[in-house]
Amino acid sequence: MPQAAATAAKGAATRAAILDRAIDLASAEGLEGLTIGRLAAEMEMSKSGLFGHFGSKEELQLATVEAAALRFRRAVIDPVLTIPDGADRLRAMIDAYLDHIDVGGYSGGCFWGSTAAEMDDRLGPVRDAIAAALDAWLAELERQAGLAGLAHPDLAAFELYSVVMGANLRYRLSKDRQVFDHARASVDRLLAEATK
Amino acid sequence: MPQAAATAAKGAATRAAILDRAIDLASAEGLEGLTIGRLAAEMEMSKSGLFGHFGSKEELQLATVEAAALRFRRAVIDPVLTIPDGADRLRAMIDAYLDHIDVGGYSGGCFWGSTAAEMDDRLGPVRDAIAAALDAWLAELERQAGLAGLAHPDLAAFELYSVVMGANLRYRLSKDRQVFDHARASVDRLLAEATK
Repeated sequence: MPQAAATAAKGAATRAAILDRAIDLASAEGLEGLTIGRLAAEMEMSKSGLFGHFGSKEELQLATVEAAALRFRRAVIDPVLTIPDGADRLRAMIDAYLDHIDVGGYSGGCFWGSTAAEMDDRLGPVRDAIAAALDAWLAELERQAGLAGLAHPDLAAFELYSVVMGANLRYRLSKDRQVFDHARASVDRLLAEATK
Repeated sequence: MPQAAATAAKGAATRAAILDRAIDLASAEGLEGLTIGRLAAEMEMSKSGLFGHFGSKEELQLATVEAAALRFRRAVIDPVLTIPDGADRLRAMIDAYLDHIDVGGYSGGCFWGSTAAEMDDRLGPVRDAIAAALDAWLAELERQAGLAGLAHPDLAAFELYSVVMGANLRYRLSKDRQVFDHARASVDRLLAEATK
């Protein structure tokens, strides 16, 4: 590989590693605590080195939200694309999401649950990016609920979203893994309507 | 009233006013941002005056959690105590909780949703106090679900908890009040099982 391409590839790998750490930090401690200085210390990099990748705290936060959306897509959406649309796809997506939370897809609990609660009152592009990601997730749930033949796809999407958020919040505080069984039972109950 | 009693009453009123503001601040910006200095500025008091009421940030955080539990009790539990146990009581409690979130019982969204997501990774007495309050709420939901004759009271409690948390998170980001209708429809669907 020519020198310039090798340098660019190394830069991209470093950026990806930084964002990977940033997602976990933000999941545990919030996006507001995600400063260039804090992250530089975590990565054992200089602050100026980190500034080379992200020019400001806001740019870093936005890149982190974008990277978290990619991580979510790889864990929850891509693996189930071969499963038929509708009830089976819905069950597989929620299963994948619960696994993603359970086995530590995020070291500090679900990135989206943590940052939505944190940023909802802080108007600006970071909040908008989080809201847009959640809108897209709800829209996909609603679309699949419609294909599953559920009578009220918008209501089903809200319920599926709520069950995952409830499981995440409850698990993080109680450390009782039974909440994941509850969440799966809720999904089964919801989808039973589709097969009636 | 004797002078000493009047002074004590004034102190208690000031403390209550401070904690009222602290609950709203923590709902919007988190318990970690709740410093003595920040709150003193908000209340236009001196830091030393605030230190007279709360000796440390942790003591302030714990008092805020306790005051939030009292606000919750007054808004959600006390008003429905005359309603018969079971499905009617459950519906009334969830209705009261959704109203409490909707009409601004907390200026920054549900205190419990915000602080649970924030504090879940910060081991210590503040996290424990939040976890204990949520355990008590889940236990009351489960008890009432049992009295309502639901087949799986623990699952129903989890679902009711999730629906309220989902409505809060979703409303705070989308500002779409339809989520409250969805939440009420979910509760109706859940409780329909009890009356079969």
